[in-house]
Amino acid sequence: MATKMCTPVRLEPPRGVSLWRRMPDDELINRVTWKIPNALALIGSRHGDTWNGMTASWITQVSMEPVLIGVGVDNKAVTHRLIRDGGAFSVNLWSAEDTRVFVKFSKPAEKTDMQLNGRPIREGVTGVPIFEEAVAWMECAVRHAIDFGTHTFFVGEIVDCGINDDEARPAAISDTRMKYGGVKRGGH
Amino acid sequence: MATKMCTPVRLEPPRGVSLWRRMPDDELINRVTWKIPNALALIGSRHGDTWNGMTASWITQVSMEPVLIGVGVDNKAVTHRLIRDGGAFSVNLWSAEDTRVFVKFSKPAEKTDMQLNGRPIREGVTGVPIFEEAVAWMECAVRHAIDFGTHTFFVGEIVDCGINDDEARPAAISDTRMKYGGVKRGGH
Repeated sequence: MATKMCTPVRLEPPRGVSLWRRMPDDELINRVTWKIPNALALIGSRHGDTWNGMTASWITQVSMEPVLIGVGVDNKAVTHRLIRDGGAFSVNLWSAEDTRVFVKFSKPAEKTDMQLNGRPIREGVTGVPIFEEAVAWMECAVRHAIDFGTHTFFVGEIVDCGINDDEARPAAISDTRMKYGGVKRGGH
Repeated sequence: MATKMCTPVRLEPPRGVSLWRRMPDDELINRVTWKIPNALALIGSRHGDTWNGMTASWITQVSMEPVLIGVGVDNKAVTHRLIRDGGAFSVNLWSAEDTRVFVKFSKPAEKTDMQLNGRPIREGVTGVPIFEEAVAWMECAVRHAIDFGTHTFFVGEIVDCGINDDEARPAAISDTRMKYGGVKRGGH
């Protein structure tokens, strides 16, 4: 089932726009937003015969009842189409000791048998790939999809989850030299 | 101006609900969600004469154009009311070397002159408090407020931001013994 997209109401500024003439410049916005110590994980997605894994860092829980997890995905990404059309995704936390995986999954993954980019996967209850090597993983059924502009925030309810390695420290973006966020770059 | 609240469309499961009979138990959901290596920061908010600072860990960017930052806030928190009614918030990243501040700001803050819980603040362009000791800070005007159940995800556009200490490492929740997220606890 295709996910219905929700465009949220755009709110007017609470005070006069004139207050915000002195907008911070792009370079400063980049430097500040890159300091947010986000997670780094692989997002699993699938629609029909197309399976993917994608590195992502805009990940957070957003509700405790139901337990909802949100992931920001670039509207141009293959993963965006797969989550929209497949209605589910997995969040695979990875060991901070094996961050090479994140560079590899920065472009669409190659599937051979039950592997993505050579990393073993299995099929979750919703059909999305779950990475066997993940430190811990959450499988989420999409409940809300909110298009915020360049990215859609997919919010899913945890329908299955597990821990494969309770000792490993899950990777954060600060464990790598990767930067993500800030302003839209030309040609991005 | 009061923020209009947006209740997003609830989507039906993409496949038969019967697939999800084996929901993970609460303890497992807690253990897995607590592994998400989130940020930890102080959220500044204000409405009229009421100012507050609150520890929060559900923080992520959600769009690059405009540059939008989302923060999940408990619907019962003072900060929820202040952001809803004030229409703005600040995200104050803090040094990982000074995490005591987060325990202190887990309940409504006391304001004396231009201090919250003894920490110096100044008034941002939207009127919200900005912490002078923050490593880096973002001041955001609320554009969307999405009630996901127990928490509202306030999404604001960066209208001002800055860096006070470019060397300090911003704190993550993993720098503390704090846990946040998982399922709703009784009496919470």
